[in-house]
Amino acid sequence: MFATHTPVNAVDAAARPAFDDADREAVYRAIFTRRDVRSDFTDEPVDDPTLARILNAAHHAPSVGFMQPWNFIVIRDRAMREQVRDLFLKARGEEAAHIAGDRQALYRKLRLEGICESALNLCVTCDRERARDSPLGRWHNPEMDVFSTVCAVQNLWLSARTEGIGVGWVSILDTTALKSLLSIPNHVVPVAYLCVGRVPEFAPRPELETKGWRSRLSPSQLVMSERFGGEGEGQLKVAIDKLTR
Amino acid sequence: MFATHTPVNAVDAAARPAFDDADREAVYRAIFTRRDVRSDFTDEPVDDPTLARILNAAHHAPSVGFMQPWNFIVIRDRAMREQVRDLFLKARGEEAAHIAGDRQALYRKLRLEGICESALNLCVTCDRERARDSPLGRWHNPEMDVFSTVCAVQNLWLSARTEGIGVGWVSILDTTALKSLLSIPNHVVPVAYLCVGRVPEFAPRPELETKGWRSRLSPSQLVMSERFGGEGEGQLKVAIDKLTR
Repeated sequence: MFATHTPVNAVDAAARPAFDDADREAVYRAIFTRRDVRSDFTDEPVDDPTLARILNAAHHAPSVGFMQPWNFIVIRDRAMREQVRDLFLKARGEEAAHIAGDRQALYRKLRLEGICESALNLCVTCDRERARDSPLGRWHNPEMDVFSTVCAVQNLWLSARTEGIGVGWVSILDTTALKSLLSIPNHVVPVAYLCVGRVPEFAPRPELETKGWRSRLSPSQLVMSERFGGEGEGQLKVAIDKLTR
Repeated sequence: MFATHTPVNAVDAAARPAFDDADREAVYRAIFTRRDVRSDFTDEPVDDPTLARILNAAHHAPSVGFMQPWNFIVIRDRAMREQVRDLFLKARGEEAAHIAGDRQALYRKLRLEGICESALNLCVTCDRERARDSPLGRWHNPEMDVFSTVCAVQNLWLSARTEGIGVGWVSILDTTALKSLLSIPNHVVPVAYLCVGRVPEFAPRPELETKGWRSRLSPSQLVMSERFGGEGEGQLKVAIDKLTR
């Protein structure tokens, strides 16, 4: 069904020495400064070599049973994107009705998509039948293929950050309608619909934090010991608090 | 319910200049050389400052509606880990029966967990009720909170790679039994069960590739244009093929 290859860059990379402090700092910086971007895209296109690097990063995500269940639909057509935006607008109206009354005004002010303003859109899908013959690691947890696809999205997001490219994940969409619009067959799941484009800068904090939707939790309070709710790991929690204050 | 804070390191990082070639290369190297590790863990412990950095990286994943639905259960107790391994052994036996006959011998030879041999285990969970009041971005796709948790796992995995720490995701487990063992309440999902420990080196390629379970697909063949199955994006595909050969 698919041709295969050995990615030379992966082998080369493995032969390189361990990460030094500067390398490690670069990876943490990508993680800390990655943002969900839905506005302020520039008119500059995303050139093919850059998009290729980003998609290759996605393709090097972990996948259960090495099944690599993803596809990448590149959507540039204006008319198609306007139809996706119409799906978003309908879905946002439906979702707004379920937001607590005192937060609806804020909800409606939030910028939740950049479908037509970004350089291009990507739909990252999961083909659930790609490893039909030998579903290693999925008998008890069949959703692992979808989780693998999410790992690919996170790789894509981080690599895009290093390229100066903003990515926004639009989850306010009716999946059935999106599948119909993009001719996605039944056995394939559209896991992520992404707006992708160059941005002049990345905000210092998530927009939902600065606009008061929700605050950053303290990570040390999210640590548990041995079982859910288990107390302990005091030294680890101190180490986490030293990092973030 | 939770104290909140502004992580100073995130703000500092955003103020730094754009990624230069060396920074970008470090991020791609982490992505290309990350491995799913289930063996060859050293006896060296994972010190608290290192584990703190890895968990902080996970905590800076994107999350739908900024809900940060994750918790991190640190499992060190030997008796607990032996019980988890028993769950794995039972599940592997059940899964093996569903692997195609000609691949069962290979399946049984694969190393699929390092639960007791690694320095510690982490169970990354998703609290589905953390944003019960205002489920932004989840009305149409309620699984987005679980996807956010998977993004946290991928951040954790990449940052661990830069620290010389191997991570293996054990998905061959009965979730109901695992929840019972770790006292995980009904509204919380154990998204990932991870083996974590120092390793002397990372294999140049995924073990499932070198052992002949499945081959690396060619990423240019996974690209589609405008709709599922859509042909086109010829220049992008050429750019991808140039990267990997």
